[in-house]
Amino acid sequence: MPTYKAPVDDALFLLNDVFHFERYGNLPGFADASPDIVEAVLREAGKFSEEVVAPLNRIGDTEGCTRKADGSVATPTGFKDAYRQMVEGGWIGISVPAEFGGQGLPATMTSIVNEFLCSANVSFAMYPGLTQGAIAALLAHASPELQAKYLPKMTEGTWTGTMNLTEPHCGTDLGLLRTKAVKQADGSYKITGTKIFISAGEHDLAENIIHLVLARIEGAPAGTHGISLFIVPKIMVGDDGALGARNGVSCGSLEEKMGIHGNATCVMNYDGATGWLIGEENRGLNAMFVMMNEARLGVGIQGLALSEVAYQNAAIYAKERLQGRAISGVKYPDKPADPIVVHPDVRRALMTIRAINEGGRALVIWASLQGDVARRSGNDKERQSADDHMGLLTPVIKGVLTDLGFANTVMAQQVYGGHGYIAEQGMEQFVRDARIPMIYEGANGIQALDLVGRKICKDGGRALMAFLGEVGAYVKDKSANEKMKPYVTPLGVAAGHLQQASMWFMQNAMAKPDNAGAGAYDYMHMFGLVALGYMWARIAEAALPKADRDATMKNKLITGRFFMERMLPETAAHLARIQAGADSMMAMADDAF
Amino acid sequence: MPTYKAPVDDALFLLNDVFHFERYGNLPGFADASPDIVEAVLREAGKFSEEVVAPLNRIGDTEGCTRKADGSVATPTGFKDAYRQMVEGGWIGISVPAEFGGQGLPATMTSIVNEFLCSANVSFAMYPGLTQGAIAALLAHASPELQAKYLPKMTEGTWTGTMNLTEPHCGTDLGLLRTKAVKQADGSYKITGTKIFISAGEHDLAENIIHLVLARIEGAPAGTHGISLFIVPKIMVGDDGALGARNGVSCGSLEEKMGIHGNATCVMNYDGATGWLIGEENRGLNAMFVMMNEARLGVGIQGLALSEVAYQNAAIYAKERLQGRAISGVKYPDKPADPIVVHPDVRRALMTIRAINEGGRALVIWASLQGDVARRSGNDKERQSADDHMGLLTPVIKGVLTDLGFANTVMAQQVYGGHGYIAEQGMEQFVRDARIPMIYEGANGIQALDLVGRKICKDGGRALMAFLGEVGAYVKDKSANEKMKPYVTPLGVAAGHLQQASMWFMQNAMAKPDNAGAGAYDYMHMFGLVALGYMWARIAEAALPKADRDATMKNKLITGRFFMERMLPETAAHLARIQAGADSMMAMADDAF
Repeated sequence: MPTYKAPVDDALFLLNDVFHFERYGNLPGFADASPDIVEAVLREAGKFSEEVVAPLNRIGDTEGCTRKADGSVATPTGFKDAYRQMVEGGWIGISVPAEFGGQGLPATMTSIVNEFLCSANVSFAMYPGLTQGAIAALLAHASPELQAKYLPKMTEGTWTGTMNLTEPHCGTDLGLLRTKAVKQADGSYKITGTKIFISAGEHDLAENIIHLVLARIEGAPAGTHGISLFIVPKIMVGDDGALGARNGVSCGSLEEKMGIHGNATCVMNYDGATGWLIGEENRGLNAMFVMMNEARLGVGIQGLALSEVAYQNAAIYAKERLQGRAISGVKYPDKPADPIVVHPDVRRALMTIRAINEGGRALVIWASLQGDVARRSGNDKERQSADDHMGLLTPVIKGVLTDLGFANTVMAQQVYGGHGYIAEQGMEQFVRDARIPMIYEGANGIQALDLVGRKICKDGGRALMAFLGEVGAYVKDKSANEKMKPYVTPLGVAAGHLQQASMWFMQNAMAKPDNAGAGAYDYMHMFGLVALGYMWARIAEAALPKADRDATMKNKLITGRFFMERMLPETAAHLARIQAGADSMMAMADDAF
Repeated sequence: MPTYKAPVDDALFLLNDVFHFERYGNLPGFADASPDIVEAVLREAGKFSEEVVAPLNRIGDTEGCTRKADGSVATPTGFKDAYRQMVEGGWIGISVPAEFGGQGLPATMTSIVNEFLCSANVSFAMYPGLTQGAIAALLAHASPELQAKYLPKMTEGTWTGTMNLTEPHCGTDLGLLRTKAVKQADGSYKITGTKIFISAGEHDLAENIIHLVLARIEGAPAGTHGISLFIVPKIMVGDDGALGARNGVSCGSLEEKMGIHGNATCVMNYDGATGWLIGEENRGLNAMFVMMNEARLGVGIQGLALSEVAYQNAAIYAKERLQGRAISGVKYPDKPADPIVVHPDVRRALMTIRAINEGGRALVIWASLQGDVARRSGNDKERQSADDHMGLLTPVIKGVLTDLGFANTVMAQQVYGGHGYIAEQGMEQFVRDARIPMIYEGANGIQALDLVGRKICKDGGRALMAFLGEVGAYVKDKSANEKMKPYVTPLGVAAGHLQQASMWFMQNAMAKPDNAGAGAYDYMHMFGLVALGYMWARIAEAALPKADRDATMKNKLITGRFFMERMLPETAAHLARIQAGADSMMAMADDAF
């Protein structure tokens, strides 16, 4: 049975020593986030994740969710009670504005708390996680009336949220969607259609479920410019906030899937369900993107979270399992064999995962801080710069941290040898659970296209140039410091590769767009490596002054060097692949596959 | 529901056009393998795999095996009937010498047939596959009496085989094993102990199960030098070959695992079971290695096989699923959207998998031919050279084709988007099934250590120098040919990296063995890339003369170029990692993990 210990200290180190959280004190809500409060909240979240949520992870996998004949869905044993405690603790709304019942704390804190929850039990964490995404969309685009009616209960968690995009014949290409909306005399709409893959679409955790649904208003244009976003409650809500009759929406079936069995993945049937428009007609994708961006960051966090819990268990196993002797000589002569942590190839796996996790956690926190600035700063320029960063980092975090997160769960499972393949050890569940973050909220290939096709060329490349400029200036600034050289020298090389790749796209993708598509995935991963490398350099900078007397900080320096020496060189291979262009990829006829 | 079509034509192309099968006609058994016979056997094997074995793959996964109260194990519905047909077809013994009832055909043909069977249903194919491994060990090390008693029935398949190595506290480090053997007056032994992870340890497919078991004879030295190999039948066999009483071995439980549910993974309890020594006392590991080498090649084939079937289904899906429009302009204006095969990132996945599969199939066939020469040639030098090749290629095929095979099933699943995560599509089963080949028969990290710690330095590096010499001579020989340049130029660079890495080990691993351990995994993958690159160059050479008039051959040239441009450059990153050495990997204290 796997265990979990929330990395609270690492999060605090990143917040305080690396990103100087106190410097953001002028932003609304940050004043309430004093160091003491932040630490108390994170320790409590860690405890809740470890003690209440984590013990339900395996039972969630083995029991799964059950749809009853009446269309209701039962979550696994224990989920209801844990969710009740989640609501009582006020965890869902810690970053929601106080006017809707939240605590108004930085969204960065929600990101960290969500990492803990997802490590403990990603299927469970998805129920509140989707609610947070729905809250974000309503905050950004819903009318004050809709906000007043729905947000307080969602912030509490007594109602949960969902997002309804996918239909059987369309996922990525939402322009094809068929769910239709017919306007009624009272300003509401009747929504009819079938949505699939709806996470948390039906369950027994909350009094009500608030569906955000993409549909096409009768007579709207075809394609993506005719899509609108609607709010469709499972149970109708009166003007007084009281629950009324069932709305015309129900769960038709549950999907049997590879993992995340504790979360109900529903086929949702809308049969003339009553809904209300969110934002403007035909601008639904726009509104949904707010939720999707939130969700993409959240999914990236899932990748990190599963990688972290997998690492922790692999590390424990590696220290306990006795097998063979160190090639450099016996290390534990009093034991019948050395623990496998002495073997370089086991350490290769552990160090790789660790380097990605600690760097990835920094990247999530850094991006979340940018998100806080983008939403809360009073300074236009600061907001724009932060928003630019977020635009670049969101697809990178989603695509790269989920790809690496999955690969890391596989590597951690490998440390167990044959035992890793056995269900009761729990490692194979991490692998199965970690597979879906690579797919949902836009498959990772789509993240790569978003980055290359949209983000790097937006506003004349402003965001990209700012990012490369920031990294370049950092490298230059720190290069004089001998102790920083092992970090910033490789970072400079990798950032140079990223720059070359960006230039290559500019020169070669205009005339032949396939060249951009063909290199997008490598570019995304190269970007991820550079971003992680930048994080590691900043971690090293913060760790250096303390490394002599603090083993944790010394280990940061070692892990950072491992990242620089062993992982960052991969940017050269990415560059070579990008520069190979699309020719051999696109040469075969479609029917030759 | 996934489909499968055996790549018979590709196998024939490799045998005939690339490796000139007819040139081996002087080897025993090869004369019977005329082109007509080979084609007939492979077509029939393909048909059997497609029509009888493949339809049972999903039911094997969903039903799994069931252990009854009496310790017997039922295989999934349909397995028994399919296995009966397998026996009737004589498939298990096609390469076993005629004196034991086999057909004496080249082992290369068994490799190809096994690829088909594993693509169709790897859980099913493991039952005969393990029997073939056990047959190989008995052929090499058992006394004529034991051979006469057991081999004919095993060759038929009416009895199956197993290998029993792992115990709860030891897998890789067999020196720790505790199962004991006590010699009896009649020359037999009483075997007592518990073995775990025994594939096909108990089932209802065969009349008898012949266990090959590692145990320590009372009084034998500790460690690996005190281990002997025994044959332990489930049901005692009389001198007349008739089945007698149950032996003292039984299945204590079945493991619940991530995949290969159709194969029974057993805890086997030996309770004073009667066994007979195979080979010499205390030389059991030696004898077992014959079986393990056979099995390692077989496991590598599993990786290839799962990658192939996953590719086939992803390719079909990519041609059917309509989503979005090609970035280079609409390709199918009569459809509501283009099939996703037009998108570069989908092709990136498909081309990558295809390049590994076609190159990997060549590598398996080439290695299998070396195996045939090593076992059958009358010429000492030829035998030695072939054996050297096999020694190098076995860990590479096992480690690299299973790592890439797994990664490829994941990539193929990704092509399906969210649908790939749904069980009924069958793609997630391929991923789960493909995970175990990376672990069993020696986890891939162990394969890497075998390659670096044992194989490349054996006999003063003779095998490695021969391999590098062969590739180098080929590159030199073909470089004058303009049409071969796109293949041999990158191959020469990659082979140079392999040479540099080998040199680096020679210079840096003597004084500090951790440097070898730290770079072993990268070295194995680098070796795999060079070997695949060599295969692709030879495929290109065979395809070039026909490419003008044969689309299949033209596609070979395209796929080969894709491999050279996009996959082979990875050797540089491997080299950089190897040359980074062990320092940052080994610097942290064990308890810091």
